[in-house]
Amino acid sequence: MKIVIALGGNALQANPKDLTSEAQLVKSRETAKALVDLMEDGHTVAIVHGNGPQVGQIINTQETANKASDSQIPVMPFDVCGAFSQGYIGYHLQKSIEEELKRRGIKKPVGTVITQMLVDKEDSGFKNPTKPIGSFYSKEEAEKLMKEKGYVMKEDAGRGWRRVVASPKPIDIVEKEIIHNMITSGMITISCGGGGIPVVYEEDKIEGIAAVIDKDFAAEKLAEIIDADILLILTAVDRVYVNYNKPNQEELSNINIDELNEYIEEGQFAPGSMLPKVEAAKKFVEFDKNKIAIIASLGKAEEALNKTSGTRIVR
Amino acid sequence: MKIVIALGGNALQANPKDLTSEAQLVKSRETAKALVDLMEDGHTVAIVHGNGPQVGQIINTQETANKASDSQIPVMPFDVCGAFSQGYIGYHLQKSIEEELKRRGIKKPVGTVITQMLVDKEDSGFKNPTKPIGSFYSKEEAEKLMKEKGYVMKEDAGRGWRRVVASPKPIDIVEKEIIHNMITSGMITISCGGGGIPVVYEEDKIEGIAAVIDKDFAAEKLAEIIDADILLILTAVDRVYVNYNKPNQEELSNINIDELNEYIEEGQFAPGSMLPKVEAAKKFVEFDKNKIAIIASLGKAEEALNKTSGTRIVR
Repeated sequence: MKIVIALGGNALQANPKDLTSEAQLVKSRETAKALVDLMEDGHTVAIVHGNGPQVGQIINTQETANKASDSQIPVMPFDVCGAFSQGYIGYHLQKSIEEELKRRGIKKPVGTVITQMLVDKEDSGFKNPTKPIGSFYSKEEAEKLMKEKGYVMKEDAGRGWRRVVASPKPIDIVEKEIIHNMITSGMITISCGGGGIPVVYEEDKIEGIAAVIDKDFAAEKLAEIIDADILLILTAVDRVYVNYNKPNQEELSNINIDELNEYIEEGQFAPGSMLPKVEAAKKFVEFDKNKIAIIASLGKAEEALNKTSGTRIVR
Repeated sequence: MKIVIALGGNALQANPKDLTSEAQLVKSRETAKALVDLMEDGHTVAIVHGNGPQVGQIINTQETANKASDSQIPVMPFDVCGAFSQGYIGYHLQKSIEEELKRRGIKKPVGTVITQMLVDKEDSGFKNPTKPIGSFYSKEEAEKLMKEKGYVMKEDAGRGWRRVVASPKPIDIVEKEIIHNMITSGMITISCGGGGIPVVYEEDKIEGIAAVIDKDFAAEKLAEIIDADILLILTAVDRVYVNYNKPNQEELSNINIDELNEYIEEGQFAPGSMLPKVEAAKKFVEFDKNKIAIIASLGKAEEALNKTSGTRIVR
């Protein structure tokens, strides 16, 4: 099977408070074992990952250095921070997978492709940016940043002011031919990291913009483009729940689009958490009647493909 | 012709004192025009670039934030900083080339491959590290870092203490199949950024190490692996000089290995500047009798291929 895997934050960070690269590499090596299990079963695997904690740390580091150096050290634009994080996470994932393949005697090239994701300037997301990035600021600092840098900043639940950016939907992958070609050649790709670096076409330029593309939607877009059989969204829970934490809580094993739509309307899934996952799953299954989307835990990815774990979404 | 291009620092930074990403993108777009000229002439181009100023800035930012935050913000290991810089520079180069190709109506995929470069643990470079990286420290701070982090630090011409790392020779490219496959498929690759992230095999692990691989040697290694016709080393001068800045100064247009060896023995080329370029050129021409190495300026790359500029080195 040709599978696009969307890796959640838990695949890269065991402890959200330990953002050292050493901790990330340890977790990445664990994650690689689960991924190589799937390759050993004969599946073709294309990996997409999130970058929330990493890009947050990159910005926080730059903002701290910028303050400490009286603005001598620049804060890089958000698209560049995304490129940093793609290099960083891709490096760790590819080396971890290469090690694990070598250990098992499997020959398969693995590589990270720096990926730009085209979004629509008119995307409704830009009208009301909601995704917080970077450090907390005082009201005065926030007002200065809004004026000087044109940031949109919002007060965040009494904790201070934070920059917010839009979360537009991906419409095309700029480097799609490369990723597609690698996959067709039997190679393992790590691409669309952090959802891809969001770009728009401005006349004859490709301009990076400050926005965050949800990695589940990016993975879904890639799955369409490479005509994957399965979109496998890996997260911290084994299955999708409805009536979560209530007496009538229920684990979902198999679900079709109509059932899923009902649950979405009921508000069963948390925005920014399970909701984008089920929406990406839904989009992929709607794209073609033979497509399958699975939401499962990293540790039970193999079982999920064998139908003994995970939530399977079909048309 | 199949050409590996090694881009010097001047291809990415117009002004070494302006290390903002905005300035880099402006220069990168200029560089892209010269590179796309070669593609328009029908050449297959594989790009390798340096990362000295960029990785210096990445480390400096982290060290400043680390100090200002009482070590709450970590300084990333050097291999990870290299991965950051590959993502950063690759992103700018690939988008600049994509824009320029689009402008000229040429359809050719362009992509950056995060690249690990295998080095030999026993490389003689490790015995006497000489490549300075990161900020300047006081003697006391330097002693603390040597003790706590195991850094090698040296006093730098009265300016303070700096960390030094080895500059080992590249022996293999971990992601070579991917790069080779992309080139064979007619795609433009940006790889081995900053000379590649140096790694060694430690039992069944691939360990990143703190070292700097010269990007000219990395480009030479790639040229061997993909069986390129030409290794084109682009720098700030149009040609290689001997007796530089002396009355008998001479521009070299064509030179063979024997002549080059004599000049090298005479100490005609500055270590850390022209010497690694001529040595990489020499290595490529020695690799196969039909290979050609050219050292030229970015602005005259096309002329250099047409033999009206540059220094051409043959067996």
